[in-house]
Amino acid sequence: MKDWIALNMTPGVGPRAAARLLERFGSAVGVFGALRSELERLRLRPEAVESIALRDRMEAAAVELERVRALGGADVLALDDGAYPQLLREIPDPPITLYVRGAWRECLEAPCVGVVGSRRCSTYGQNVAQQLARELASRGVTVVSGLARGIDAAAHRGALEAGGRTAAVLGTGLDEVYPRDHRRLAEEILERGGALVTQFPLGTPPVAENFPYRNRIISGLSLGVVVVEASENSGSLITARLALEQGREVFAVPGNITSRNSFGTNFLIKGAGAKLVQQWQDVVCEFPPETAAAILPPEPKRKGARREETPAPADLSAHERAVLKLVGTDEPAHIDALAVKSGLPVQELSGVLLSLEMRELIRQLPGRCFVRKL
Amino acid sequence: MKDWIALNMTPGVGPRAAARLLERFGSAVGVFGALRSELERLRLRPEAVESIALRDRMEAAAVELERVRALGGADVLALDDGAYPQLLREIPDPPITLYVRGAWRECLEAPCVGVVGSRRCSTYGQNVAQQLARELASRGVTVVSGLARGIDAAAHRGALEAGGRTAAVLGTGLDEVYPRDHRRLAEEILERGGALVTQFPLGTPPVAENFPYRNRIISGLSLGVVVVEASENSGSLITARLALEQGREVFAVPGNITSRNSFGTNFLIKGAGAKLVQQWQDVVCEFPPETAAAILPPEPKRKGARREETPAPADLSAHERAVLKLVGTDEPAHIDALAVKSGLPVQELSGVLLSLEMRELIRQLPGRCFVRKL
Repeated sequence: MKDWIALNMTPGVGPRAAARLLERFGSAVGVFGALRSELERLRLRPEAVESIALRDRMEAAAVELERVRALGGADVLALDDGAYPQLLREIPDPPITLYVRGAWRECLEAPCVGVVGSRRCSTYGQNVAQQLARELASRGVTVVSGLARGIDAAAHRGALEAGGRTAAVLGTGLDEVYPRDHRRLAEEILERGGALVTQFPLGTPPVAENFPYRNRIISGLSLGVVVVEASENSGSLITARLALEQGREVFAVPGNITSRNSFGTNFLIKGAGAKLVQQWQDVVCEFPPETAAAILPPEPKRKGARREETPAPADLSAHERAVLKLVGTDEPAHIDALAVKSGLPVQELSGVLLSLEMRELIRQLPGRCFVRKL
Repeated sequence: MKDWIALNMTPGVGPRAAARLLERFGSAVGVFGALRSELERLRLRPEAVESIALRDRMEAAAVELERVRALGGADVLALDDGAYPQLLREIPDPPITLYVRGAWRECLEAPCVGVVGSRRCSTYGQNVAQQLARELASRGVTVVSGLARGIDAAAHRGALEAGGRTAAVLGTGLDEVYPRDHRRLAEEILERGGALVTQFPLGTPPVAENFPYRNRIISGLSLGVVVVEASENSGSLITARLALEQGREVFAVPGNITSRNSFGTNFLIKGAGAKLVQQWQDVVCEFPPETAAAILPPEPKRKGARREETPAPADLSAHERAVLKLVGTDEPAHIDALAVKSGLPVQELSGVLLSLEMRELIRQLPGRCFVRKL
């Protein structure tokens, strides 16, 4: 553990360099056992080679670990630790140490969703972030955000209001909450079953270049990231981009096209394949099937009665009637299969399915599948 | 012509029955030359068989045509007429006659876009409809709508403001403008280079069952339909469905998820594949390539200089740099081709492309293609 912390504290070693070192030497212990000549061949910065060869951060690392544990409920997780979050481990160049505090185990074991957005946001955005976080957190989803002003704070607060879990990822050390007027919020998060997470050593101050690393962790911990509001140049668009690069779902809440604050979210939906979110279910239904099934409300069943299909209304068109027959109550039918069976071109079929959906006869499931309503 | 008008006026003959008759007998003249026994085999309504066999609408049709022409600038187009709009002819069961008035030829020859939405709409919706119609019409696109209150009226007015063309499709006869307080608007449309269009004979009053036929014509005439605002049960969702069935593009303007009036449009984007519209270009760029190219502003060219690429900024990531190299200024590169060439999974590639787009280094074209900016 000490070796991991020392490596993370080594000057000139960021996630990229750390990844190169680990690829070559397998572990932090391996890195510190390497010959100077081997280190030099990896084209690290000279101060990094020097520091590793001298093992000059080892003592600082021992002190660091003690100081972290003295904070109370805090710990450091190394990349090879079983407790290190699985999803985060899968991103390119994951942080080699993760400083955690609070109910981090419970928070990070639950399905996590990032809820992020502009610091300068509208009342609409703030309300939507808080409401969405409340709905997700009350269903056991951990709301991950960046403790920033605006949307981030609203998301954390919504989760707390629901008595749910929330994790704040910092761009600073665990002992340096930023912005400072969010200290009370950070304390509340810790008191009420939430967690603080960062990759940065204690005492790391807020510097602009560290915040993109924070954003990588927000998306890295999460099954998906919801951007609630973002103007044209918002940092949240970068979080969305990182999430896409990490292969995570990206969601965006639409807004009036006349609002600057919704320009970025509308753009993500239009041009980057972000999924449009109208309500919390739109997020959950893109989770892996078992996770989604555990959260989404089960279909209402009539007790003691056989499940019966709603009868088809008399005024359906011939195509509607034909397609409805192909959609069963138990097995989801994929749109491509329906196209083959109905003989309708997909575009026409889409229209028919939309019509059946609007008449509440069928329901769309994730992945362009459809089932008949009971 | 008289035969077509008579067939369209025959009681019990709607578009479906007319299509069956034409399939069997080839033309209106053929239908009226058919034996009663042949007509009976098509399982038409008895009053239709009776009327056709007796040719009892012929006289009325002659009077109708005279009365239409007496309106001034009005005419009737039959399905086999060269002037009948080509796109409308391609829909399933097209109307067999089209009553037109005003500058119909110019209006219907230009690329048409339907702009529709709720009658009860918000100020936001009204503003957006008017603005979008203004932008499209000022670029030679005909704005097609249904002369209804709310979004429809705003769309017609926006087109007129721009000195552009607009076509109002009626669910009534040419001489029966509905709602009655839109008579002045209808007159303005005629006076200022627009057109009125309907499939219904003179004197047809506003009856609810006719309006879906009007909606079919709006989408049938158009390359695509933009839904500006629609609540959960709005008739505009039906227009969207018809457009999908006809294989036309469907667009929707997003709005705040807290607004009832945007529920339907957000839903169309989320669940029915409607394209999100932030500005007029989002509509035009989905037109057939030649049509789009004639409308979209050409790339700015520096006079007397070789076209030069914007140099790549120094802080690009390795992936961004690699992908940027694959995107040229002259030939659009499709995302799938880029995935193959870059070796990146599509999701990660999306993130990289988004990033390059946000940095204004590349531009997305219709059909998930990309070009480098100059």
